[in-house]
Amino acid sequence: MNLCGIHHVGVAVRDLDEAITTYERLFGARVEHRDELASQGVEAAALLVGAGRVELLAPTGEDTPVGRFLARRGPGMHHVALETNDVESTLRELSEVGAHLIDVVPRRGLYGLEVAFVHPDAVHGVLTEVVSGG
Amino acid sequence: MNLCGIHHVGVAVRDLDEAITTYERLFGARVEHRDELASQGVEAAALLVGAGRVELLAPTGEDTPVGRFLARRGPGMHHVALETNDVESTLRELSEVGAHLIDVVPRRGLYGLEVAFVHPDAVHGVLTEVVSGG
Repeated sequence: MNLCGIHHVGVAVRDLDEAITTYERLFGARVEHRDELASQGVEAAALLVGAGRVELLAPTGEDTPVGRFLARRGPGMHHVALETNDVESTLRELSEVGAHLIDVVPRRGLYGLEVAFVHPDAVHGVLTEVVSGG
Repeated sequence: MNLCGIHHVGVAVRDLDEAITTYERLFGARVEHRDELASQGVEAAALLVGAGRVELLAPTGEDTPVGRFLARRGPGMHHVALETNDVESTLRELSEVGAHLIDVVPRRGLYGLEVAFVHPDAVHGVLTEVVSGG
């Protein structure tokens, strides 16, 4: 297993600009990246809090994964992303131990990173992303 | 603001041993600490995944904060803990910007750490802990 640590914590929010302002004001966060993934219906900002990273996710519409999450659970923690040196080999090892994967091959995520998701059913309700460092 | 990064991600689980086994098996996690806070009705384990830390929290009964969380939302992400060099000065700064604090003075948390919680209403639904490094 090539996992290095927590790459970021993903948080679902209704209004991206408002949430960025909150994190800047309360925690001295600064915006590292801002990006939109039209195919996922999400606009996102990666914020650094010290050396830690929080990814704020706002839906571009109600009928999107994050839009449905907000309707069901309200704003709050959405996923945890674990950083790996090699997403493909991590996915292979997860498959070997029988983990329920959402992505069996990596896909292109926000900010050009290579990502894959493990189903929350496999991790006691925690949607878990593995992501290439960067 | 003296925040250094993400100290841990807190996860509410029903069965602590089962959840530890899952994290060991899927992510090569190893147990750093295990502790019980009787006053909070919680048993916890801090797990290292690479340099990252996940804190698994299991309730000791239904009528406890984590027991009620599980009844309401099911298992999953419970809080994010931000590490600070100085919990008291961080709390002072959070007060100055009008953040809604659960703890206005630090208290003793798991593993002997000094902790305080910011109300999720202040952080777009994310229960946020500030914690002394260690």
